[in-house]
Amino acid sequence: MTSPYGLHRVLDPAGVLPQQAHRLDATPVCGPDEVVVDVSRLNLDAASYRQLREQYGVDGVRRAVLDIVAARGKMQNPVTGSGGMLLGTVREVGPDSPLGLRVGDRIATLVSLTLTPLRLTDGLARWDGADEQVPCEGTAVLFGRSIAAVLPDDLPEQLALSVLDVCGAPALTDRVVRRRTAPSVLVLGGGGKSGSLSLAAARRAGASRLVALVPTEKEADAVRSAGLADSVVVADARDPLAVAAAVGTRVDVTVVCVDVPGCEHGAILATADGGTVVFFSMATSFPAAALGAEGLAADVEMLVGNGYVPGHAAFALDLLRAEPAVRALFEHRQTQQA
Amino acid sequence: MTSPYGLHRVLDPAGVLPQQAHRLDATPVCGPDEVVVDVSRLNLDAASYRQLREQYGVDGVRRAVLDIVAARGKMQNPVTGSGGMLLGTVREVGPDSPLGLRVGDRIATLVSLTLTPLRLTDGLARWDGADEQVPCEGTAVLFGRSIAAVLPDDLPEQLALSVLDVCGAPALTDRVVRRRTAPSVLVLGGGGKSGSLSLAAARRAGASRLVALVPTEKEADAVRSAGLADSVVVADARDPLAVAAAVGTRVDVTVVCVDVPGCEHGAILATADGGTVVFFSMATSFPAAALGAEGLAADVEMLVGNGYVPGHAAFALDLLRAEPAVRALFEHRQTQQA
Repeated sequence: MTSPYGLHRVLDPAGVLPQQAHRLDATPVCGPDEVVVDVSRLNLDAASYRQLREQYGVDGVRRAVLDIVAARGKMQNPVTGSGGMLLGTVREVGPDSPLGLRVGDRIATLVSLTLTPLRLTDGLARWDGADEQVPCEGTAVLFGRSIAAVLPDDLPEQLALSVLDVCGAPALTDRVVRRRTAPSVLVLGGGGKSGSLSLAAARRAGASRLVALVPTEKEADAVRSAGLADSVVVADARDPLAVAAAVGTRVDVTVVCVDVPGCEHGAILATADGGTVVFFSMATSFPAAALGAEGLAADVEMLVGNGYVPGHAAFALDLLRAEPAVRALFEHRQTQQA
Repeated sequence: MTSPYGLHRVLDPAGVLPQQAHRLDATPVCGPDEVVVDVSRLNLDAASYRQLREQYGVDGVRRAVLDIVAARGKMQNPVTGSGGMLLGTVREVGPDSPLGLRVGDRIATLVSLTLTPLRLTDGLARWDGADEQVPCEGTAVLFGRSIAAVLPDDLPEQLALSVLDVCGAPALTDRVVRRRTAPSVLVLGGGGKSGSLSLAAARRAGASRLVALVPTEKEADAVRSAGLADSVVVADARDPLAVAAAVGTRVDVTVVCVDVPGCEHGAILATADGGTVVFFSMATSFPAAALGAEGLAADVEMLVGNGYVPGHAAFALDLLRAEPAVRALFEHRQTQQA
């Protein structure tokens, strides 16, 4: 019997989830609720790629990835613990798969490579090791609870991928903003990928005053021209008092999309009592958020930004299609992190 | 003009919040919205005390604390960054203080020592350095946004303190459970201090099925005898599959009160789609929670347990008074962490 979490693919140690496993069974034989994918590209997590390159050099990084995948049956960097995502084409769909995929669909996985059974068959011959985009041949397996998005025909693949990479943020922003009546909303890092999508999502969800905070005047100009916010302010998101001063009247909802440590206190200070802070940045420190709110006697609800909200991929792609300004920002920033 | 956040007490560097400051002005002169307290005891944060004792030994720890407070104007361990809380008697109340304290009130501070201006005047002569309870003489300053609880007359001081130490958990549990109609609730670490209070709070807030998960049969017996939950199960909270198996049908609300790393995935797996997980443990990892939910395709709301909810101190003390079973558990566990 197969498990929707992929427990049946765990070889070592027995009885853990695939993400915690040392080794998975990556045999490309399709279980009843599984999907087998012909993989064409890996997008390694940036932190993982950087670590491998520092340890092995550009020339050694190909061997390192091959060794990891051969040993573990998945691409999970043993030092950083992180993975990435993959692109491929559906080869086979089990009769009980709930994912709604069809043979031949071009897909991107939205669950991490750290839990995806993977086999590489081309020795990564086409990858020069120079960046984290890894063209490859091989197979991967999706489980009943995996998440994959069918790549749209009408958008360039690289653009679609960069939207899918951050698609949890606009979906959760939509949900949080809709819970309130015309709330004021602040997005820290409003000029980035997840930030600009979150601004657009907040506007559509009924935000009244919409404030974007960005680090530079140049970025402020871009967000202003795009018309994504009612006001655009410039401040260092890591400086709580500067954030509070720049924002002025405290907002009902703050969305943190700045991927640097130390933005917790500014977000809390800028949020009114009874308000909500949503942290999307992986650089968020749990103790800094918890103790910061306590130290400031701030009665704010603080949410861990869950990267999964049902329908998040389609929601984010639709936002991009409907908002030329968001698309323009994405196309300008495709080489930058957000 | 004084700031409710204590900005006027920051000496170095200028323009940061007191918690981030290197040095505060601890002069015991009462500003218009301040309160000056005669301090009688410090409760050092356990991690801070341990670090100081390892670095300086039992004989050197007194000198180390005196040096830190003299240099910084607050008791913030420069290595761990943490502080603790203090006990004292209100000496003076500024005319504009919103805290509702009166001269002579015996109080405990519920904001961290890391942001509380402190001066020690007795050289810590009565402290032998053997544990984190530091009898002392000195003064502290509370700000407009500080939080302090008046110690109740009807409870032993040590018992009241151990309740106040975790009083954010039951208050937020109450709020989260009341949002739903008769939800099922799971408390990981239901036998501990914050856990037993959270169970009692969940029951009063209308929880239907109430499950406590504890690490040992001995602890399970104690919680069963206390009648705090409908069912008590034994499992290692760090083992996601063991947690899921022990809990059975997934619950609507999970409250994490286990202060060890690695409990995020079990909490997520045990929670139904559309449910809420509240993380109170300072050992919670933000990335583990965010990536875990994504990897499990779990549509759960995850809250950072804010230690501040208005009225939390009175709420927790009232729970203890009203629930003899909770009080009995506290009295039995007063030497243990929860």
